Amino acid sequence: MIKIVVDCFGGDHSPEANVAGSVNALSRFDDLYLILTGDEETIKKCLEGKEYDKSRLEIVHAPEVVGVDEKPTDVIRLKKESSMMKAIKLLRTEDDIAGMVSVGSTGALVSAAMLRVGRLKGVMRPAFCPILPTMNGGIVGVCDSGANVDITPLHLVQFAIMASLYLENVYNVQKPRVALLNIGVEEEKGDELRKKAFRLLKETKEINFVGNMESRDLLSGKYDVVVCDGFSGNVLVKSTEGACLEMLKKLKKDISSRLINKIGALLMLKMFKEEKAFMNYQNYGGSVLLGTSKVVIKGHGSSKEVAIEKCIEQAYKMELSEMSPKIESCMEQFEDIIIEDLITK
Amino acid sequence: MIKIVVDCFGGDHSPEANVAGSVNALSRFDDLYLILTGDEETIKKCLEGKEYDKSRLEIVHAPEVVGVDEKPTDVIRLKKESSMMKAIKLLRTEDDIAGMVSVGSTGALVSAAMLRVGRLKGVMRPAFCPILPTMNGGIVGVCDSGANVDITPLHLVQFAIMASLYLENVYNVQKPRVALLNIGVEEEKGDELRKKAFRLLKETKEINFVGNMESRDLLSGKYDVVVCDGFSGNVLVKSTEGACLEMLKKLKKDISSRLINKIGALLMLKMFKEEKAFMNYQNYGGSVLLGTSKVVIKGHGSSKEVAIEKCIEQAYKMELSEMSPKIESCMEQFEDIIIEDLITK
Repeated sequence: MIKIVVDCFGGDHSPEANVAGSVNALSRFDDLYLILTGDEETIKKCLEGKEYDKSRLEIVHAPEVVGVDEKPTDVIRLKKESSMMKAIKLLRTEDDIAGMVSVGSTGALVSAAMLRVGRLKGVMRPAFCPILPTMNGGIVGVCDSGANVDITPLHLVQFAIMASLYLENVYNVQKPRVALLNIGVEEEKGDELRKKAFRLLKETKEINFVGNMESRDLLSGKYDVVVCDGFSGNVLVKSTEGACLEMLKKLKKDISSRLINKIGALLMLKMFKEEKAFMNYQNYGGSVLLGTSKVVIKGHGSSKEVAIEKCIEQAYKMELSEMSPKIESCMEQFEDIIIEDLITK
Repeated sequence: MIKIVVDCFGGDHSPEANVAGSVNALSRFDDLYLILTGDEETIKKCLEGKEYDKSRLEIVHAPEVVGVDEKPTDVIRLKKESSMMKAIKLLRTEDDIAGMVSVGSTGALVSAAMLRVGRLKGVMRPAFCPILPTMNGGIVGVCDSGANVDITPLHLVQFAIMASLYLENVYNVQKPRVALLNIGVEEEKGDELRKKAFRLLKETKEINFVGNMESRDLLSGKYDVVVCDGFSGNVLVKSTEGACLEMLKKLKKDISSRLINKIGALLMLKMFKEEKAFMNYQNYGGSVLLGTSKVVIKGHGSSKEVAIEKCIEQAYKMELSEMSPKIESCMEQFEDIIIEDLITK
């Protein structure tokens, strides 16, 4: 049985979407066991009328909710009765729980996961790795997309190894092509961080490094994994998402501005629906925090039922494919470096 | 008379597009005088059959061309006979020349402009400011988009002042709304650079600072100027451009995959053409390097005739609106800081 905790509060469509997504996931995987955290009465109401295997779903009462703008340190210290912190506590104390899914405050989730759940052996910094669809029907993972803003070249090497293992094990991508996000494709481009990282990545035998990448090629399908610092990774993912959404919005507005466009669009209805589904990040699950000792998935704040179901699927598949021991085995080489670093501090 | 040099070589469509764009610009502005640098015979051939005021166009022979991958230092030292370095030399030596336009290597152009043309008084770092269309029909400037990868909070303040003046004077945007690119909108978001820059920007009376901005809102029309370091600015601009282009490509492919889509698209032909023109960066000119003592415009490597014409128009308008003295007057306050910085080094 694979046990996963679902934090049922904190998103735009919580708790209804979280509960419905959980029920859907339960029906898809026979060996999945879910623990839902949040206000028990509310969750029970959301479950009313739904059919599911009651022996594989449990509610852990948590009366408080973490707000989007709350300070991570305050959440960890003061919001122990929140659905998020209860989920974190379960992850920390119950050995048989594999992971958690949350759509609540990113800052609080990252801090709580780092402090309370801890890192896998050898991992310096856990990092987010969201998955985006490419225009040729494939996917691309971006690591890190926001967990770390100040990093070293060695962190980038670790992000590359973890994200490669993730794409290979959870998405069946063979020998993922890893690229370094930079402001040009030539080897000597970028700042000192990028130049040094390029040299290190080239020497890392665990990955299939293919060189620098310019942000305009993210969706081209030429790369499977993009490594970057959390600041530029965040800019990369959000501006790509934003540009696609703004374009769809404009298209919609322009279509409704003239009758002839409306007729044309009606003929193309099937295509536009497919286009919309393709662009809909709800269909691609959440962003996994790679490198924590248990699986932590951060779903979009606006996650609906289908997105929650996908997030649970991601956590389930990560546990099933035994990602954690694989990451630890690759990270053994870094242990001495980390110890040295601790001594010199 | 406003004199501008056009580097006619180094782009994908050079020299034909550069020459044709120059001729078009000449016919639009009666007090414009153009100096074209590059191989004289080739330029003359491009001019054959074209009608223009010969008293306002001059060719300066330059037999060499700067390649895209050439090292900036090598270009400056060894490629003195190139169309780019000849243009830079004219800018440096001829007082009555106001600016230059080039579509050649960005690295070489930035380095040569900084070293040979120099900065305006008080400016610490010149920075690129490309203009993008927003989805509500407006524009937004991004500064810096790639000239500086390692910067300080004070540099960001200068970028904000220069870009504000640019939008106000060249694009008639009243009190441009300036935002700081960050990974969240709350004041305390981001790394130390962003936190400190936020506080400084808030206190800068010359600008209309409206707070942090997330990259997904770049095209929303909520902001007129976005300030950022050159690395994340480059990622922001290129990923936005890339996502829009990849989406258009996918739409085109999907339309041609089914007959019913083709019929629908035929009805929407006018709309799709407008959409394409709207997305076409050729219509928005080039990226101005703000802060150099003379106007330097970097056009896209793939600039066609219309883009070159727009670049020349930008240079012309910058000179006409007397941007340089306005920037210098705002930068007076920084002079002491720069001198102090030089002394302590």
